[in-house]
Amino acid sequence: MRSSLESSLRQLKCHFTWNLMKGESSLEDFEDRVLNQCEFQSSDFRATVCNILAYLEHHRGQHEAALEHLRQAEDLIQQQHADHAELRSLVTWGNYAWVYYHMGQLSEAQLYLDKVKRVCEKFSSPYRIESPEMDCEEGWARLKCGGNQNERAKVCFEKALEKQPMNPEFSSGLAIATYRLDSRPPPQDPIDSLRRAIRLNPDNQFVKVLLALKLQKMNEESEAERLVEEALEKVPRETDVLRCAARFYRYKEALDQAIDLLKEASERMPPNAYLYCRIGCCYRAKVLQTLHRGEDRRYGKRARLPELIGQAVDYLKKADEANGNLYQICSFLAGLYSLAGRFEEAEYYFQKEFSKELTPAEKQMLHLRYGSFQLYEMKCEEKAIYHFTEGMKISQGGSKQREKIRTKLEKIAQARLYNNEADSVALHLLAFLQEMKSKEAWQNDADARRRLDAGKRIPSTSLAETENEK
Amino acid sequence: MRSSLESSLRQLKCHFTWNLMKGESSLEDFEDRVLNQCEFQSSDFRATVCNILAYLEHHRGQHEAALEHLRQAEDLIQQQHADHAELRSLVTWGNYAWVYYHMGQLSEAQLYLDKVKRVCEKFSSPYRIESPEMDCEEGWARLKCGGNQNERAKVCFEKALEKQPMNPEFSSGLAIATYRLDSRPPPQDPIDSLRRAIRLNPDNQFVKVLLALKLQKMNEESEAERLVEEALEKVPRETDVLRCAARFYRYKEALDQAIDLLKEASERMPPNAYLYCRIGCCYRAKVLQTLHRGEDRRYGKRARLPELIGQAVDYLKKADEANGNLYQICSFLAGLYSLAGRFEEAEYYFQKEFSKELTPAEKQMLHLRYGSFQLYEMKCEEKAIYHFTEGMKISQGGSKQREKIRTKLEKIAQARLYNNEADSVALHLLAFLQEMKSKEAWQNDADARRRLDAGKRIPSTSLAETENEK
Repeated sequence: MRSSLESSLRQLKCHFTWNLMKGESSLEDFEDRVLNQCEFQSSDFRATVCNILAYLEHHRGQHEAALEHLRQAEDLIQQQHADHAELRSLVTWGNYAWVYYHMGQLSEAQLYLDKVKRVCEKFSSPYRIESPEMDCEEGWARLKCGGNQNERAKVCFEKALEKQPMNPEFSSGLAIATYRLDSRPPPQDPIDSLRRAIRLNPDNQFVKVLLALKLQKMNEESEAERLVEEALEKVPRETDVLRCAARFYRYKEALDQAIDLLKEASERMPPNAYLYCRIGCCYRAKVLQTLHRGEDRRYGKRARLPELIGQAVDYLKKADEANGNLYQICSFLAGLYSLAGRFEEAEYYFQKEFSKELTPAEKQMLHLRYGSFQLYEMKCEEKAIYHFTEGMKISQGGSKQREKIRTKLEKIAQARLYNNEADSVALHLLAFLQEMKSKEAWQNDADARRRLDAGKRIPSTSLAETENEK
Repeated sequence: MRSSLESSLRQLKCHFTWNLMKGESSLEDFEDRVLNQCEFQSSDFRATVCNILAYLEHHRGQHEAALEHLRQAEDLIQQQHADHAELRSLVTWGNYAWVYYHMGQLSEAQLYLDKVKRVCEKFSSPYRIESPEMDCEEGWARLKCGGNQNERAKVCFEKALEKQPMNPEFSSGLAIATYRLDSRPPPQDPIDSLRRAIRLNPDNQFVKVLLALKLQKMNEESEAERLVEEALEKVPRETDVLRCAARFYRYKEALDQAIDLLKEASERMPPNAYLYCRIGCCYRAKVLQTLHRGEDRRYGKRARLPELIGQAVDYLKKADEANGNLYQICSFLAGLYSLAGRFEEAEYYFQKEFSKELTPAEKQMLHLRYGSFQLYEMKCEEKAIYHFTEGMKISQGGSKQREKIRTKLEKIAQARLYNNEADSVALHLLAFLQEMKSKEAWQNDADARRRLDAGKRIPSTSLAETENEK
């Protein structure tokens, strides 16, 4: 019985067969994203959220809690989709069957399978089936059409491979689709689909704010602002709308408004590291604003600086305590402490950041910052040179950061040579910078050659251009 | 009968219900891409190609030809998929039903519907159905998981909308998914899936060459070259492999090898504008190579120049005659004619290129080239200034091109001022360039502000950095 049950369970469409955790490094990361990061239209889709929570509880081994979430999902579906409740419940029932199966309650599992079966019989179409072979045929057809069909083709092969992971044909289809999407990523047009969604869902404020964010990027500030104000007026307390609206004001450098909205959202949610981090970053941005203005105009606003630094530090520390993996957070704390003249704390947070797993660009940035800290605050040129040099060696970093580091090293070398024209540290530095420069030039050359594109795009150097470049 | 037939037809999974021409500007463009541009594993998937050809013939109104292609597809499926022939034939039968329906042969259409129905009954799963509601549930679950699930979520909502285009919920799901993919495009990892596909399909040479192209981009030349050589040894006459392998050699600047492979492919295919264009471009690249080498070393290789120019011109003209819309082709021809001293033909092709619909970057490049042609070959500074200025005004063009144009205009101005320090043309030019510069600076500023990202990525200016920048 167990094995026939298992094969039936595998046919269900539900969270347990959707491979939702594919590519996740850990359950914790997955949970963190689902629960804390991804904004969502909270009020509308609570049944969806309940099903995911059930799936998460199952992975934590909390079967009873999982069942409780499924019961909530069922109730919500009855309320939200009274007219399609059976169809909408299929996913939840599928999840029930899987949870009971894992609890060893096979007859309960069978019961839910039967519920699913009855509805499928009622609604199934005699002219279409789901099968990996069909997905594969569809995938090839879409691949052959190319262009904007490659995305759909990829999903067809992914689906087919979920059923038959070792199938050679499906795997080559997926490989070709992925190759094409990597070379020619499909253009997305969110504006059109957002406008359409708003037309069809005039009361959906979340989508409205998403459109506003997109319009803001395209410099259409006034329509964007109108949309955000409208959304906040209609649902002044919906956390996802508040968070997205805050993003709008932060881009706009209206930091006080952004902070107010984020605090409002934070009061209505369980403790959330990402929110704390954003609030902290807004205060940090205010610190930077004040510094720049202060430097420009030399008037009294700097008096507020210690207070602002304190607020930024408070929120960033709260965020760091809630989630130790947030990007750059320790490095920000170090910078703020350094600014407040509290160098011990600054040192502590710099070291904490160094102990994390960082991408090359992040590591480079950190060397730049810590080198500057050593040079200007700790007056230790030796350590500064060491960290600038380490940063310079990272070739996959950002070109702007590298330029900054180069300038700093050049200045150090020049100053030393001014004092002693045979200074060996300075001469070594200059030789090192020269070596880096030729490596880069070589790399740029290779990249340029590679950029000659063989598709429809053809090398863009014009003959007339090349010949006449005198 | 007709309307119940139609509703059954709509349930079929086949080319007629897959919305393959979505977003196409014309049947011609679609045909051109499917038939001429998209490389494919020609030998393996002829049934797929036959089905698409049938679909194209139907759109051209050639029903008999469409049926003929479907018959070919059926035969090929019997040969290629003897063990799954029924399942694999579902798409073809679906297409038959649609073609007969459009021909008014309703009983024939019904016959194919019945064939599909019998197989679906045999293979259908009692525990899963395809319905837009299910797609929608899956879409929300994936959206809630975020990260690499957004792509699949988008496809779920697209599928659901195909069935119910005006559904508000589906449309807001699609809008959110598109918004997210636009802001955070998913990383593709073709290397892994290509290696896996090769492992599972050791005889698939096409996928091998795709992997080689990817490796080449990552500077892993030696493994890449080995793969290409292996593929060419195993299938020295397969056109798609030849075309991709040629691309590999062209990136490598082994132009003679690339040309040989492309000519080989061209002999085995119907006339193809893209192939001619690529051959022409390879000859053009050889022209450029010879020029550079000749300039460097001043020895006799330039003698071959007229011959190479002739070959480049021949192939590019053939390509232009076969398809008048290929990118840059007229501009290349103009450059080659100019180089050969045949200015009338050069002028003709420049004007032809100007008459096309060009993107801002293309238009800018063309102004740069034509301006140079006027300046250096036709000795007409006035026209050159006009075109450089027009090119300079295009703000969405490429920054490298703009720099080139700026330098040219500056040189013209300097030369004029050297002769007459009150030269009004020169003074106007300098004022114009200054104005452009401040516009750019303003734009860069605005862009930088916008790049502050509100997601997990947080503004990357370090406090220590900002404060210590002395």
